[in-house]
Amino acid sequence: MLTTYQFQTAARILAGENTLLQLTDHLAAIHPHIQRALILTQPALQEMGYTSSIEQQLTDKGILFDVCTTILPEPTEQNIEETFAAFSEHKYELLIGLGGGSVLDATKILSVLMTNDQRIKDILGTNLVEHPGIPTVLIPTTSGTGSEVTPNAIVTIPDQELKIGIVSSYLLPQLVILDPVLTLGLPKPITAATGMDAFTHSIESFISNKANYFSDMFALESIRLISASIIEAYENGASISAREKMLLGSTYGGMALTAAGTAAVHALAYPLGGKYGIPHGVANSMLLPHVMEFNMDHCVDRLTLVAEPMGIETAGLSPEDAALRVIERIREWTAKLNIPQDLKEYGVQEKDLKALAQSASEVTRLLNNNPKVLSLEDMEQIYRKLLDV
Amino acid sequence: MLTTYQFQTAARILAGENTLLQLTDHLAAIHPHIQRALILTQPALQEMGYTSSIEQQLTDKGILFDVCTTILPEPTEQNIEETFAAFSEHKYELLIGLGGGSVLDATKILSVLMTNDQRIKDILGTNLVEHPGIPTVLIPTTSGTGSEVTPNAIVTIPDQELKIGIVSSYLLPQLVILDPVLTLGLPKPITAATGMDAFTHSIESFISNKANYFSDMFALESIRLISASIIEAYENGASISAREKMLLGSTYGGMALTAAGTAAVHALAYPLGGKYGIPHGVANSMLLPHVMEFNMDHCVDRLTLVAEPMGIETAGLSPEDAALRVIERIREWTAKLNIPQDLKEYGVQEKDLKALAQSASEVTRLLNNNPKVLSLEDMEQIYRKLLDV
Ligand SMILES: NC(=O)c1ccc[n+]([C@@H]2O[C@H](COP(=O)([O-])OP(=O)(O)OC[C@H]3O[C@@H](n4cnc5c(N)ncnc54)[C@H](O)[C@@H]3O)[C@@H](O)[C@H]2O)c1
Ligand SMILES: NC(=O)c1ccc[n+]([C@@H]2O[C@H](COP(=O)([O-])OP(=O)(O)OC[C@H]3O[C@@H](n4cnc5c(N)ncnc54)[C@H](O)[C@@H]3O)[C@@H](O)[C@H]2O)c1
Ligand SMILES: [Fe+2]
Ligand SMILES: [Fe+2]
Repeated sequence: MLTTYQFQTAARILAGENTLLQLTDHLAAIHPHIQRALILTQPALQEMGYTSSIEQQLTDKGILFDVCTTILPEPTEQNIEETFAAFSEHKYELLIGLGGGSVLDATKILSVLMTNDQRIKDILGTNLVEHPGIPTVLIPTTSGTGSEVTPNAIVTIPDQELKIGIVSSYLLPQLVILDPVLTLGLPKPITAATGMDAFTHSIESFISNKANYFSDMFALESIRLISASIIEAYENGASISAREKMLLGSTYGGMALTAAGTAAVHALAYPLGGKYGIPHGVANSMLLPHVMEFNMDHCVDRLTLVAEPMGIETAGLSPEDAALRVIERIREWTAKLNIPQDLKEYGVQEKDLKALAQSASEVTRLLNNNPKVLSLEDMEQIYRKLLDV
Repeated sequence: MLTTYQFQTAARILAGENTLLQLTDHLAAIHPHIQRALILTQPALQEMGYTSSIEQQLTDKGILFDVCTTILPEPTEQNIEETFAAFSEHKYELLIGLGGGSVLDATKILSVLMTNDQRIKDILGTNLVEHPGIPTVLIPTTSGTGSEVTPNAIVTIPDQELKIGIVSSYLLPQLVILDPVLTLGLPKPITAATGMDAFTHSIESFISNKANYFSDMFALESIRLISASIIEAYENGASISAREKMLLGSTYGGMALTAAGTAAVHALAYPLGGKYGIPHGVANSMLLPHVMEFNMDHCVDRLTLVAEPMGIETAGLSPEDAALRVIERIREWTAKLNIPQDLKEYGVQEKDLKALAQSASEVTRLLNNNPKVLSLEDMEQIYRKLLDV
């Protein structure tokens, strides 16, 4: 474990059923006189009626607002830059992002583009944003990325066939609203993939070389909450209690990864998103058991500690057997959650694996956190397991 | 448990051995051009050399600074107002508080006095501070109050023979440094009393009527860390690992109480501090087992859940017996920690109990959190147990 470690998060988090209805009660603490706000969401979410409560509340407070629905899933640099251009005419005192990680990441990026003389290409990387952005409220509708509490935002860069992270404390929001009601309508495949993304954040943070007291607490609590609810949330999406546990679990996953970082699963997932458009949670979920098997001899003790919060009985098991049970349980989940396991379904072929491994090897920010070093051959081998299914 | 709940904390927390040496690396994120800072501490801490590293670092960065050592333990309104008057001549861009809860609370209050046209008497209570204060860095040297992560500051009001809380998000700091090295020299009685204060925050938050997912996570982790280290930190004060666990445990205690609030132990402790000058941790520690015994029939299930993180074997025990073991363990600790148990030592007499109970009954902000309602007679009875020892 690290001897020096850090924690940072959103300025304020409001959680619980129907807390979206309290949004405007909390705006005064952010800015005394908001004249105009920008709501960012996606058409599907708007059609589900999720933004109408926000619009009503802003209207009641006499706050003008615009609504932007142009952010695409897993947004590209171009998509965000074009959105910026379309909305740079007005001055906003507040950005409200309501959606999955794609909308939240875009909201965070737009907030700093609006106050800095910098373009996206100037801020890709760590600590390159020069000034604080416009205050943001982030309202996740997937459980999920944990983006609402991380200083990270991920951009798809088609030229480089990769996804790249922007990391800056200025991306953290002033307010987060965790309202599980907004996730009740999450379709099954998205519940499954985003839920496994959240779980991956926590387990990767827990085995990370940068794991520490802060990240361990959030990671284990996240693992406990997600393990207790992921199958229920998938099978019975209307269960508010399962949805609430998933939402908290994913936020804690974001806190864990902020403190410790994700690792090889995420590094290997980025090229699958960048080149083949595989949704982020699906890519992680495919890779997770294979990468953990690869890592196992370097993190048996840590994986063993994950068994108890996953609800796995470990009495009488050797550490190796307990760790294997953890991986086995992950496989059981991905089967029950019907998450695709075959890269061929996404058009990946044997001949593409070298280039994929090459791209993944460039994600050193995350690979450095992995308990076991991966060679190019190791990465290729891991990808190959997802072709030979 | 509450269905709507909140979490807020310091903007950034840096933790680990010798992290004080990294202070100035983190100032740019708080303010781009700090010209003059005010360091607040106490003479004893200055003599131990704890501020010299800060002074050196500020000098190296070309930042001017003043040092204030006039804050007394458990500071009164007058003490803080006089300090304010003495240091209102300069304009500071940063306040750095290094000390126990007394210094940290005073630093928080001074930061908002310096930017508001309000005096202490105007801000006693909840959400009465009008504008954000000067940015603060809080560096605890006791483990302890958790003040470094709470929106609360406590002022002794001799006129009213009471301690009163100021609650405002504007009291939260921009940076917290948790450096266990600063607690290595904490004398035994202060290690004991402040450690029990931290434990009280967590157990009271856990049984609070406002307990929720956030507070429970921090409370249980705090209880786990403190239970694993309080006796070791007392008996072997040079143990950096015990000191680190205590420091994290007390910070998590502050996070727990921010989310859920403390309850009757703290309400009953305030008059003992306000009228008889009993140190805050001692007062809490004396009251804790008695209040828990009183509460027991209203929170058996919650107390039972505290047993496991305290390291108490519960297999085969009824919930009542497990809860009783928790209280028994607290008594064992207070004996080992040599914490006074007799109010007579502080000059309290039988005839004073009515007035004490009357004062405590006014702390409704905290009494409302208690799982069981206390009548004036109940409070008198609890105080009486601390006379008949
Ligand atoms: N910032 C971070 O720390 C972080 C961490 C992990 C991933 N990410 C990034 O986040 C993005 C992925 O986010 P995501 O997994 O949340 O998916 P997403 O935001 O792309 O959403 C997936 C789909 O679900 C829809 N949707 C979202 N919420 C819904 C709801 N409640 N009901 C119905 N439909 C809903 C969206 O409209 C979209 O079509 C990727 O770009 C990924 O790289 C960021
Ligand atoms: N803000 C909050 O949320 C909160 C919570 C609980 C208590 N409090 C308040 O905090 C105050 C008590 O704070 P405390 O219990 O930390 O005690 P304290 O700050 O009064 O310190 C106690 C004594 O220990 C000395 N000391 C501190 N650190 C030392 C070190 N490392 N080495 C040697 N000596 C050291 C101090 O100089 C002082 O004399 C009370 O006023 C209490 O009401 C505030
Ligand atoms: Fe992810
Ligand atoms: Fe306290």
